[in-house]
Amino acid sequence: MADRIPIAIDTLGGDNGPVYFVRGAMEGLKQNRNVKLFLVGNKEQLEGLVAEYDDYDRDRLEIVPSTEVIGCDEPPVEAIRKKKDSSLAVGLRLVKEGQAKALISAGSSGAVLAGGQFIVGRAKGVKRAPLVMPIPTSEGHSLLLDCGANVDAKPEVLRQFAVMGSIYMENLFGVKNPTVGLVNIGAEDEKGNALVKATLPLLRECNNINFAGSIEARDIPFGKTDVVLAEAFTGNVIIKLYEGLSKMILSELKNACMKGPKEKLGGLLIKKSLKSTVSAFDASDKGGAPLLGLKGLVVKIHGNSKNGEVRSAIRQCRQYVQSGVSEKIRKGLEENDI
Amino acid sequence: MADRIPIAIDTLGGDNGPVYFVRGAMEGLKQNRNVKLFLVGNKEQLEGLVAEYDDYDRDRLEIVPSTEVIGCDEPPVEAIRKKKDSSLAVGLRLVKEGQAKALISAGSSGAVLAGGQFIVGRAKGVKRAPLVMPIPTSEGHSLLLDCGANVDAKPEVLRQFAVMGSIYMENLFGVKNPTVGLVNIGAEDEKGNALVKATLPLLRECNNINFAGSIEARDIPFGKTDVVLAEAFTGNVIIKLYEGLSKMILSELKNACMKGPKEKLGGLLIKKSLKSTVSAFDASDKGGAPLLGLKGLVVKIHGNSKNGEVRSAIRQCRQYVQSGVSEKIRKGLEENDI
Repeated sequence: MADRIPIAIDTLGGDNGPVYFVRGAMEGLKQNRNVKLFLVGNKEQLEGLVAEYDDYDRDRLEIVPSTEVIGCDEPPVEAIRKKKDSSLAVGLRLVKEGQAKALISAGSSGAVLAGGQFIVGRAKGVKRAPLVMPIPTSEGHSLLLDCGANVDAKPEVLRQFAVMGSIYMENLFGVKNPTVGLVNIGAEDEKGNALVKATLPLLRECNNINFAGSIEARDIPFGKTDVVLAEAFTGNVIIKLYEGLSKMILSELKNACMKGPKEKLGGLLIKKSLKSTVSAFDASDKGGAPLLGLKGLVVKIHGNSKNGEVRSAIRQCRQYVQSGVSEKIRKGLEENDI
Repeated sequence: MADRIPIAIDTLGGDNGPVYFVRGAMEGLKQNRNVKLFLVGNKEQLEGLVAEYDDYDRDRLEIVPSTEVIGCDEPPVEAIRKKKDSSLAVGLRLVKEGQAKALISAGSSGAVLAGGQFIVGRAKGVKRAPLVMPIPTSEGHSLLLDCGANVDAKPEVLRQFAVMGSIYMENLFGVKNPTVGLVNIGAEDEKGNALVKATLPLLRECNNINFAGSIEARDIPFGKTDVVLAEAFTGNVIIKLYEGLSKMILSELKNACMKGPKEKLGGLLIKKSLKSTVSAFDASDKGGAPLLGLKGLVVKIHGNSKNGEVRSAIRQCRQYVQSGVSEKIRKGLEENDI
């Protein structure tokens, strides 16, 4: 079927093994009637796992054998170059060769980032491919980029990221004309480091983005802007501090609710009401972190992803392809002549 | 009395006005028998406020008149240069001239940073003066520097900061041989931006610090290292995200406890147990943020500081002087030949 969206899944990356990937794939097949999935990994193992299911559309699922796996402790660039038959490399080649429009991997972040750039390659006109992640805010979610793919990037690169993030936010999260903020250490234009000061005027001149100026880190959790733009080092610090600090506070909260019988009762009474707060920090239903600007979509999901995350990422890839984000990004950069 | 520790207080900076500063000063006088305080500000107003107290040691309190004030919306560098009779400038000159050993100000951060460097000046051998703040962790507190004073600093500057932070942490918070971590986007030495990669080897060679390598932002809230070293832009993002994210989560938590009668009861039951978690994020008892490495101590307290913060900062200044931190920093840099 010509209009099926082909998506590859790296079943060997990550901590949890192919069982969950196959389960997530089966769920994804049911929920997304127009996708075709390639399961990349150990052929026999995958055949065995798939054989446990019978209620699925066989011509929308294909096993693609691979014999190697890249570990999280391997130097990523070297690993992706040497292990040509790793599940990640094989999956990325499917995207490069056009057999798949997207790859989902829970493998080593470094290898996914490096492989995306080296194997799939950047789309025409794209200087760098940023890693993009949704972050929970009191207003819902904002979109943070670059979360760590391109350290020491130039202002011209950040300008492209602003356009990419804006288009992704509009098309994948349905936010019309999303506001874009550049992370800075003050609200005024004279604040900031050399990179930020050089980037601000470029963003102000940029067409087709709703640039809101600088955003201080304290305003990020309150959703001051829909898109939060940062250089990769800063973006990575933000995403990881978000993860660590929310984990720490919620665990302290849990401890406070376990202190004694009175507190346990109190915890029970607020549990339901608290659930939405807590679950906002659990990203499993938001899809993974895409690398934007490549010749195909590469989505990194968390190392400990299970079927839920795989299922969400399949939906995310389908929506990405259906809404024509790649083409819109190409146009957006072209219109800005950047 | 020769061994009294003279401390100046800028009573016009900040949001709350001199009432709270005078109250904090009176409390500080009582709690610290060997300090002498200079209240810098509007003479008549201060005399009026001081007249309301009678139970204090009159020769340990002196009013120093000043006629101007620097607002938070003024360009800081220009303001500190032009407004020579501002409470901040007058206070800083007291430190410069040796009449005071320290200044406490709740005024414009930019003006305090600029004024500290321009008016008080850096101690011999010190390349830059970092802004230092305690941050709450699950283990107690870590010390973060540089929180925003010197963007785009060089590796040699960060090396000095590592020594300063280490000495401050040991002397002011009583942590023996504190571990120092450099904020990075991965644990391995090949990770990081150009600045971090150039700084890591310098820190490994450094004597008299307990260098623990890179620290990822997700580990900061769990107190992985006692001292958290970062370039000022990153440090400022960390401190502000800490502030914003904890505020956001705790306010969501409060909302969850106000949803209905059941939740309100639950909230009441866990309130006491939660208090220590919540109060860890309220820094009023931890003193302010010192600028280290100047010829005297300059302590920035929060713009909305009240008497409690002033009182804590007075204690902090006394401890700083008593434990000879300035001299220890000088020796530390000398021993490292940096």
